[in-house]
Amino acid sequence: METGVTTELYPPERLGRAREAAAKAGLGAVLLTPGPDLRYVTGYDAKELERLTCLAVPADGEPFLVVPRLELPAARESPAGALGIELVPWDETDDPFALTAARLPAGLARVGVADRMWAVMALRFRAALPGAEQVAAGPVLRELRMRKSAAEVAALREAGAAIDRVHRRVPDLLRAGRTEREVGRDIADAITAEGHARVDFVIVGSGPNGASPHAEPSDRVIRPGDPVVVDIGGTMPSGYCSDSTRNYCVGEPPAEYRAYYAVLEEAQRASCEAVRPGATPEAVDAAGRGVIAAAGYGEHFFHRTGHGIGLESHEDPYIVAGNREPLEPGMAFSIEPGIYPGPHGARIEDIVVCTEDGFESMNLTGRGLVVVD
Amino acid sequence: METGVTTELYPPERLGRAREAAAKAGLGAVLLTPGPDLRYVTGYDAKELERLTCLAVPADGEPFLVVPRLELPAARESPAGALGIELVPWDETDDPFALTAARLPAGLARVGVADRMWAVMALRFRAALPGAEQVAAGPVLRELRMRKSAAEVAALREAGAAIDRVHRRVPDLLRAGRTEREVGRDIADAITAEGHARVDFVIVGSGPNGASPHAEPSDRVIRPGDPVVVDIGGTMPSGYCSDSTRNYCVGEPPAEYRAYYAVLEEAQRASCEAVRPGATPEAVDAAGRGVIAAAGYGEHFFHRTGHGIGLESHEDPYIVAGNREPLEPGMAFSIEPGIYPGPHGARIEDIVVCTEDGFESMNLTGRGLVVVD
Repeated sequence: METGVTTELYPPERLGRAREAAAKAGLGAVLLTPGPDLRYVTGYDAKELERLTCLAVPADGEPFLVVPRLELPAARESPAGALGIELVPWDETDDPFALTAARLPAGLARVGVADRMWAVMALRFRAALPGAEQVAAGPVLRELRMRKSAAEVAALREAGAAIDRVHRRVPDLLRAGRTEREVGRDIADAITAEGHARVDFVIVGSGPNGASPHAEPSDRVIRPGDPVVVDIGGTMPSGYCSDSTRNYCVGEPPAEYRAYYAVLEEAQRASCEAVRPGATPEAVDAAGRGVIAAAGYGEHFFHRTGHGIGLESHEDPYIVAGNREPLEPGMAFSIEPGIYPGPHGARIEDIVVCTEDGFESMNLTGRGLVVVD
Repeated sequence: METGVTTELYPPERLGRAREAAAKAGLGAVLLTPGPDLRYVTGYDAKELERLTCLAVPADGEPFLVVPRLELPAARESPAGALGIELVPWDETDDPFALTAARLPAGLARVGVADRMWAVMALRFRAALPGAEQVAAGPVLRELRMRKSAAEVAALREAGAAIDRVHRRVPDLLRAGRTEREVGRDIADAITAEGHARVDFVIVGSGPNGASPHAEPSDRVIRPGDPVVVDIGGTMPSGYCSDSTRNYCVGEPPAEYRAYYAVLEEAQRASCEAVRPGATPEAVDAAGRGVIAAAGYGEHFFHRTGHGIGLESHEDPYIVAGNREPLEPGMAFSIEPGIYPGPHGARIEDIVVCTEDGFESMNLTGRGLVVVD
């Protein structure tokens, strides 16, 4: 079993909770293929393969896990093997969709499919269950996944500490004369060296590339005076993700950059401080956005303030205008306003968790500009 | 643009070919989200995100690429930006599914969705295009993707050479006293060091774990006399994948292992030599399987002989009983029979390409057992 995967983090009772949630949502069954929902419910980090692996959770009946025979040993050794559910292997020339359908209760009217199930598999299930309307299982699972347990918050804290250690190494890697790609490769190595199981993304946006929030590391050579946006994240062996953005400058930045960077720091703090139970994501977004707009940079902040995080880098809740679902303790998300006036830009990002009376940040490195010599 | 991504490898005329193939299959449009089909058609290695990116290819009309505004610079700089198609950005509070539907020709009866589109997106498209029956786009795209061009075969050859270099390093990494996980980590590092952009999988199955074809590297300590199955692969910057299995032993293996290993070598060669235009995958599978059965190990080879490979590690054509679609020049796939009698097992795997008169192997390291001291 992977390091960090405990029954505290993946408690066996989630299977029953998923069943209750499905029944309450009027779903006759939920079908979960490899991905974050399956991992959340069972702890099983199954590989995404063309061969079907699927946990079927009927609202009225026993759950079962359909697995390719080749994956049976891995499924047995995974936390799913300890849940006491039946593992149903299938052979190379079997039809696993028909096999799953035949074991489900007859006459299901609606089934939920994992949000990230491959469409080709959903279409095969549609053919195998012709009477059942398919809906996304996401809304059912999000109700469980959105509020993190103490063990999940601890896993996010561990992920935050790991990516903080990577940011502390960045000043040694950034130098005028190196390309974004070279720096990005070193950062990727540091992400795994600091304990992540996987690198999810590395953004090294220097000079004008910092004005494009999702720029890929390029062959651009970093020059003296370039501000550099470094937005990085990975997945820990526990399954939980990190994501943090800090800003560096090789030598002294331009004066106008200093001016809007101060605004950005204030805006990011304002959004963090708006986090508390009962606050809406929309209000959290507006808190920082208002600071930026009041300083005259409103048009240069053109993305949402944040995204939820957990077993996925991006999940519910989204911190965006229009989301009025009140925050609750345990919800975890990024606060990452940016200002991109060109010919450079900046973004500050922390992962925060809503607590009983405010917020806790998973990222503890300083938010100020780091000037590298 | 990523290294190795050229218009020779990703020729612009694929867009027109995809449109023709869609029309011929009776699809009013094909909808491709980030993944291998989108990359094949446009060269764009778009990130899989919760924000919709989608290439719409109407059978009768101009193709267009819907992208989140944040991804617009990346899309423009990607090979897709040079195709002369309209890029349609959407903002954080837009509905990109409605936006896509509104730009498609009215009254479409059938649309193809990328096999690996997330189900939640396919369901959103279903709601946005209520009159259109959804089918998997895979069968349309596979007709194009299955026959590799000379540039694609060159990319697979380059991937094969990279993974061969990793296998040549394995004898230095395998030692009695190390765990599978330790060896696996070093191999993962070597996979990227030897030129892959990404590690796809690392199997280090020592002793009894070698009898489970898809065992994950565990904390098992490798002991003297253990046979070890090493099955590894990654994705190159070109987008093309490697995959090769070789067998090692720390010191002298058990005598019965030597006996079935000789059978396995003969079986793997027999399947390779059955590859030629007009041969069926079923016959290629049977050629090696027959050798193994004749030697009395039939029940210990319980998986298919191979899978196609290209922009995905596993794609069409599958080398399996029941597949009678004749091979053609340019088809690329693994030949990987195994014998798993326990308390150990072995598998030999090469990627081969069907040529005008036989096969070419992408993997050139020796297939014999490598005894490590």
